[in-house]
Amino acid sequence: MPTANQLLEDIAHVGRDTDDGYHRMPWTPEVAQLREWFAGEAQVRGLEVVEDGNGNQLAWWGSGSDALLLGSHLDSVRGGGAYDGPLGIVSAFAAIDDLHAKGFAPRRPIVVANFTDEEGARFGLACLGSRLATGAITAEKALALLDDDGTSLAEAMRRHGRAPEAAGPAEWLRDIGAFVELHVEQGRWLADGSAAVGVASAIWPHGRYRFDFTGQGNHAGTTAMGDRRDPMLGYAATVLAAASLAERTGQRATFGRVQVLPGSTNAIPSAVRAWLDARADSEPALDSLVAAILTEAEQAAARHGTGVVFTSESVTAAVAFDEVLRDRLAGLLEAPVLPTGAGHDAGILSAHVPTAMLFVRNPTGISHAPEEFADEADCTAGVDALVRVVEELA
Amino acid sequence: MPTANQLLEDIAHVGRDTDDGYHRMPWTPEVAQLREWFAGEAQVRGLEVVEDGNGNQLAWWGSGSDALLLGSHLDSVRGGGAYDGPLGIVSAFAAIDDLHAKGFAPRRPIVVANFTDEEGARFGLACLGSRLATGAITAEKALALLDDDGTSLAEAMRRHGRAPEAAGPAEWLRDIGAFVELHVEQGRWLADGSAAVGVASAIWPHGRYRFDFTGQGNHAGTTAMGDRRDPMLGYAATVLAAASLAERTGQRATFGRVQVLPGSTNAIPSAVRAWLDARADSEPALDSLVAAILTEAEQAAARHGTGVVFTSESVTAAVAFDEVLRDRLAGLLEAPVLPTGAGHDAGILSAHVPTAMLFVRNPTGISHAPEEFADEADCTAGVDALVRVVEELA
Repeated sequence: MPTANQLLEDIAHVGRDTDDGYHRMPWTPEVAQLREWFAGEAQVRGLEVVEDGNGNQLAWWGSGSDALLLGSHLDSVRGGGAYDGPLGIVSAFAAIDDLHAKGFAPRRPIVVANFTDEEGARFGLACLGSRLATGAITAEKALALLDDDGTSLAEAMRRHGRAPEAAGPAEWLRDIGAFVELHVEQGRWLADGSAAVGVASAIWPHGRYRFDFTGQGNHAGTTAMGDRRDPMLGYAATVLAAASLAERTGQRATFGRVQVLPGSTNAIPSAVRAWLDARADSEPALDSLVAAILTEAEQAAARHGTGVVFTSESVTAAVAFDEVLRDRLAGLLEAPVLPTGAGHDAGILSAHVPTAMLFVRNPTGISHAPEEFADEADCTAGVDALVRVVEELA
Repeated sequence: MPTANQLLEDIAHVGRDTDDGYHRMPWTPEVAQLREWFAGEAQVRGLEVVEDGNGNQLAWWGSGSDALLLGSHLDSVRGGGAYDGPLGIVSAFAAIDDLHAKGFAPRRPIVVANFTDEEGARFGLACLGSRLATGAITAEKALALLDDDGTSLAEAMRRHGRAPEAAGPAEWLRDIGAFVELHVEQGRWLADGSAAVGVASAIWPHGRYRFDFTGQGNHAGTTAMGDRRDPMLGYAATVLAAASLAERTGQRATFGRVQVLPGSTNAIPSAVRAWLDARADSEPALDSLVAAILTEAEQAAARHGTGVVFTSESVTAAVAFDEVLRDRLAGLLEAPVLPTGAGHDAGILSAHVPTAMLFVRNPTGISHAPEEFADEADCTAGVDALVRVVEELA
């Protein structure tokens, strides 16, 4: 029986780039290889794999209703780590191995999910697979999303042999009675304590917002500073203002993605497009953080004779996980309860079924980067926790 | 006989993108099409086209030594205008048409050059063709330059059927007695006066400098602001400092190109690579401007727990054009004399042969952008000036 870490090792080469980060974008050869691996591991364990119209894979131990859903996702951000997503899936497979070995006979179906495109790294909207399956986004809107090369989700699915017409609310959702997603912690809450595994209380509300700074492209050598309308200056001022506002209010604001037109060293940009990721401990706090950043952006753009257009691309409300399930698991595992600033498919599913999350300790707290880590003993503790959860709930 | 504007119209569709900017990168199908056009226009006029080992095309009217060189370049920056480069070539062809019609018999050879890769938009170093031909850069160093996709100049040439081994100092240079490059003005010096054509006095010293800001990639949602080492903050502070320092000292500083790793909305960057274009009215002024920007960058990076590595990619010394030739042309044309902040192949050639530049009025002063413009009457005045220059010098 392979351990969770051995299963991770089996896929460690897929989508790995030269600096040890992972690039596992949805509907690419790398993710296709991971999906094949998922189907193979499910088959070895006697699980029946069903794929819905959105590309979500579900591996069933047993059939029927009121199933207990486990699993997570296999895609990554650009340059991501090895654990964010895959740890939840390999831990579910390893837990099933343990349960099989013990001769455990579940009273309800157990399902391991591989949700497609959790990160939103390609089409700009996170949790696309779970949003589509639950109807949190319409198929029409999702299929029209474009990647950086102008390829739509519909076209990307077609290139991988999928019929985009099948995308939308999934029937399997009716048969799910509860969802428990195990995930590597993406912060240092557990790192400073003695517990290897924690239970999530809530997900902070968060959003992605596009800032289009517009100016006048011109020659970098011949245009006097006073004659410029350089949109890069408004962008730069907004980056600093966002960090300072978030720090002052205890919230979070990040500019991690920027596109410059024309993008030549010797040309003043005509446009700078940048995305703000903002998170806060309450919805009013998020609203006022974003409003304050926008005010700073508008003032900075105006100071430089440029403009800024603001687009709220997606905002995800706060999620408070099911209190009964949370307290039951925290008691069972004697695990601490902690909040998170990260979005998850569990956050989307929680609007439909009682949902909980288990976090596995990450000594550095780093995530979405090659340094993301959980040590082997803690990964084993995560699998053991999942085994106890299944024994308790199924 | 087509006018200069009609010749420009003939190539107006090549490399034009949807927002009316031009993308004419060296060693691409777009520029191959322009090179074919150049060869055809030369042939129509009875000129013999010779290509050197660097890809520079030279169209000869007559042969022998002490030739008068005209021409410019056909490549563009990303999203550039229609005039920067091509105007010098179409004006030279139109001037030759006028001289042919007048039955003018030159006493020395006349050559129209199409210098390859003047903008440096693909491989990061401007005036590559003239630098190679004059030995201002070694073939070894130039051929190893990489574009954003990791393709070397050597490989790009090979893909277009050229032998990179032939790159290096060109024999034609020995046969050139003088160079007069006509170019659209890239500023508003002429726009506010009554002259359609001016003569260049000097090119400001200028350089391209790379700033590599390094930090710690991490999750944008779960990493508290105080725990971050976000390289975007050092970059943003440096952008603002550079603009402010350049404005205060009357010099020029621009950040027009930036790359973010990993470049995901929900990830704090691990690295931000940005290029500074800096220009000044003297070499000491350029040195102190760049040093001051670097100091600000280092201080900003340190404030955010990040680092910065500085690389001077290329620095081009000040060019003072040949005074005798400059005064002769300014007197002949009764044209004003003006400096420029833009680099040109003429700046490279001026170290080897008496060189002058004619600028054609640009009513907006905008360049390296779709709004770059010269009206038809001024383009005609440019051709007329070139005719008089050839009559005077050849």
